[in-house]
Amino acid sequence: MLEIVSIQFKKTGKPLYHALADTIENRLRESGAPGGERLPSVRALAGRLGVNNATVVAAYRVLEEKGVAYTRPGSGTYLLPPTVPPPKEDEVADLFGDYTDLSNGRLTLSGEMIDLAGNSPTAEVFPVAEFKEAVNTVLDTDGGYAFSYQESEGYYPLREILASFSQTQYGIRCRPEEILVTSGAQQALDLLSKATLHAGDTVFAEMPSYIGMRSVFTLQGAKLFGIPMEADGLNLDILAYYAQRYRPRLLYTMPVYQTPTGVSLSVEKRRRLLRLAEQYDFYIIEDDLFSDVNLKGERLFPLKAEDTAGRVVYVKSFSKLLMPGIRTGYVIAPAKLLERLSAVKYATDISGSGLIQRALAAYFQSGCWGKNIGQITGAYRKRAAAALARVAAWKPFGVRAGEVKGGFGIWLTLPGDITDREIFYRCKEQHVLVAPGSLFYISPMAGFERHLRISFASAKELDKGLHIVGDCIRATVNQKSGHTIYI
Amino acid sequence: MLEIVSIQFKKTGKPLYHALADTIENRLRESGAPGGERLPSVRALAGRLGVNNATVVAAYRVLEEKGVAYTRPGSGTYLLPPTVPPPKEDEVADLFGDYTDLSNGRLTLSGEMIDLAGNSPTAEVFPVAEFKEAVNTVLDTDGGYAFSYQESEGYYPLREILASFSQTQYGIRCRPEEILVTSGAQQALDLLSKATLHAGDTVFAEMPSYIGMRSVFTLQGAKLFGIPMEADGLNLDILAYYAQRYRPRLLYTMPVYQTPTGVSLSVEKRRRLLRLAEQYDFYIIEDDLFSDVNLKGERLFPLKAEDTAGRVVYVKSFSKLLMPGIRTGYVIAPAKLLERLSAVKYATDISGSGLIQRALAAYFQSGCWGKNIGQITGAYRKRAAAALARVAAWKPFGVRAGEVKGGFGIWLTLPGDITDREIFYRCKEQHVLVAPGSLFYISPMAGFERHLRISFASAKELDKGLHIVGDCIRATVNQKSGHTIYI
Repeated sequence: MLEIVSIQFKKTGKPLYHALADTIENRLRESGAPGGERLPSVRALAGRLGVNNATVVAAYRVLEEKGVAYTRPGSGTYLLPPTVPPPKEDEVADLFGDYTDLSNGRLTLSGEMIDLAGNSPTAEVFPVAEFKEAVNTVLDTDGGYAFSYQESEGYYPLREILASFSQTQYGIRCRPEEILVTSGAQQALDLLSKATLHAGDTVFAEMPSYIGMRSVFTLQGAKLFGIPMEADGLNLDILAYYAQRYRPRLLYTMPVYQTPTGVSLSVEKRRRLLRLAEQYDFYIIEDDLFSDVNLKGERLFPLKAEDTAGRVVYVKSFSKLLMPGIRTGYVIAPAKLLERLSAVKYATDISGSGLIQRALAAYFQSGCWGKNIGQITGAYRKRAAAALARVAAWKPFGVRAGEVKGGFGIWLTLPGDITDREIFYRCKEQHVLVAPGSLFYISPMAGFERHLRISFASAKELDKGLHIVGDCIRATVNQKSGHTIYI
Repeated sequence: MLEIVSIQFKKTGKPLYHALADTIENRLRESGAPGGERLPSVRALAGRLGVNNATVVAAYRVLEEKGVAYTRPGSGTYLLPPTVPPPKEDEVADLFGDYTDLSNGRLTLSGEMIDLAGNSPTAEVFPVAEFKEAVNTVLDTDGGYAFSYQESEGYYPLREILASFSQTQYGIRCRPEEILVTSGAQQALDLLSKATLHAGDTVFAEMPSYIGMRSVFTLQGAKLFGIPMEADGLNLDILAYYAQRYRPRLLYTMPVYQTPTGVSLSVEKRRRLLRLAEQYDFYIIEDDLFSDVNLKGERLFPLKAEDTAGRVVYVKSFSKLLMPGIRTGYVIAPAKLLERLSAVKYATDISGSGLIQRALAAYFQSGCWGKNIGQITGAYRKRAAAALARVAAWKPFGVRAGEVKGGFGIWLTLPGDITDREIFYRCKEQHVLVAPGSLFYISPMAGFERHLRISFASAKELDKGLHIVGDCIRATVNQKSGHTIYI
């Protein structure tokens, strides 16, 4: 809970509760609180300040109206995180301008670096031989047809395969006509953005989240609002509060093994989120990066499997599961939206590659998927275990690691007043690349520089790299004497 | 020249020249004139109406200020074509809603139809065997690397090849760093649109033109203005007039063998267009569909070859030249713009397919290009000759055919009051698909329904199809007795 001990009122001619609201707001913002904290109870604050309860109630109402706080019935009043201003001219390009090693939000990597930043899968597990056979089968069978224009929605036999695959693999019932094949998840977001948004529309996204979605939505002129993550997924109180005020068109979310936090949405929150989408009339874009890559043997279905009202648009990429270079993913969307997506796909790049889509269909038909995904998950389980053992050794100097039940990464919280920036540059000097946590925030907010994401997906010298990161953190901690606890 | 014989002035309290201007404007719009026509000389109109020369001069100036007409120094005053209103809500999807056979501007084709509408190349000439070899070379040599994430700008060795290819093939000097590989020309337009436009910006395009660009620019919230085509390319007087008023960011143009008219920009107009781009600070997007496919042996270089000021962005697709299914093209842009395009490419779909880009590089290195492009052009020369001979036989019943020096199509002007719609549906009943001319106009304007585009690129039964189209036109002409001449 935030403390508000003494407040001095300026004589402004405003009513007392207005002056109180202004003062509380300034005090809260100065505190650097990230949002989500409970404010003192009405009675407690009134008593401490020597004012009427009604004055505090009125002040809290002013804060609600200003979007500074929200009230959870029966629980109290909570601070909202700062909202994100509309995108500026060159925001996309400038976003990470002060990281000299980052180019447009992409971490660049020179040959000798150990990469603990990228979220790419390891090339060791790519089913190259199986895919080569599939490509040659297609070229022998289909000849020139493999190189003709392709339907914008994708090669129909592949869409049939994906519909049945989605049912058996993810518990999602859909028809081939509800599927559109895309050039990976990124293009799915681009098409959804174009198909549903106009300049000035509002989009919600998890914060922190996959930051590649930011440029997609802002390029379309949308206003992005970050909804904070909690240990059981999105903070739905804040989402509901914002939804009522800003009427979003879309919510971007990763309900299973979220990136970068690794958190999954709880069962209760899944149901409530679907209801909120109905109530406030928005689409939930579910980016399912990792539901297949479960590292502890649990098997969580995507949110789409529970979607009876047609509110969830399911986005799946094969970049993480098979290999990024096939640049293929798919969308499952309600039929009416899919029609619009198809028109937008045509306007964007006419269609995907017929050759790759036919080869992917042949690959699925060859029955290699089960074997490959088993190999892939097995490889990541080993890597995750090795990485977690190493990271656990950093606990004594204040590093907390998030749970890792699926996916490719570990979300670390740094101790005290150490920033991701310090560690990033220190590691870089030692030729190790880590992802600073602030890269995953839509906009800077208090506490956003306190994290690192360590990816164990593909580094060749994983253990050596982690050893160096640990040394860098320890050295930084030791350098700072008597470090203070933030907030 | 337009005739303005009698004009009745209403008493409105306005000055005489204002009333005259209003009346002329209404009269012109009612006449359905498409724009570009010369108005009567000042002296002639003043004499005919019994007013002072000064009154007519003032009235013409009002028309200029309103964007209704423009003055070509030393030549006279000309009617401007109607401008295009900003895009509406569901414009893209609704554009061709009243053609029941068109879906989102795409002509759909059932199996038994003879296709004289599509602009796809014929699968007979696809170098499938050469490409299969290239794909296998890459898979054997590069293995998993072919399936890793690719640089957003494209596979560097391919960019090197394309830089040298552009020099030898098109006379364009550029560095690999000025090249970005795209998923075809359509994606190049999408990226350029995102990289340079904000909602409300103005884009100019040839009218008629490739209509697939319309949805790209309107999805970005741009306002599109059509600049009429003349026998030697864009009407640059109108372009200059509009440029001064509306300050476009982009001009979309096909200077060589324009689609659908087949017209090329004259030498004089090339120079003037480059100067205009400098003067009014816009980029020229040059879509080079067909400069390779010259059917009469002439060899026109792209406009980009003359661009010393970095005003031309060159867009090249291999869809028409090799095969559409490789979904690969490239952009040559000034370095600063290319950097922005790269960020936008990353936001749009991360990167193209590494496999296809590596295979294309291997294909170029195998030295097959020269042989293939020779075969391809040879095949189209034969098809063009056959088609033109057939179309020449329609002259007696009033069909005019545009010149065909390059490309895949013949632009026909229909006689009298016959519309493209009538012929389209009549042909369709006979299982032949032709492209109605109105599909190529940004917005409806007078005269826009008087054309057909006949594509000779890929129809298997080209001669039979053309025979049927000829019969349909003749039957329609005969049905209409005493047909009137339009305008």
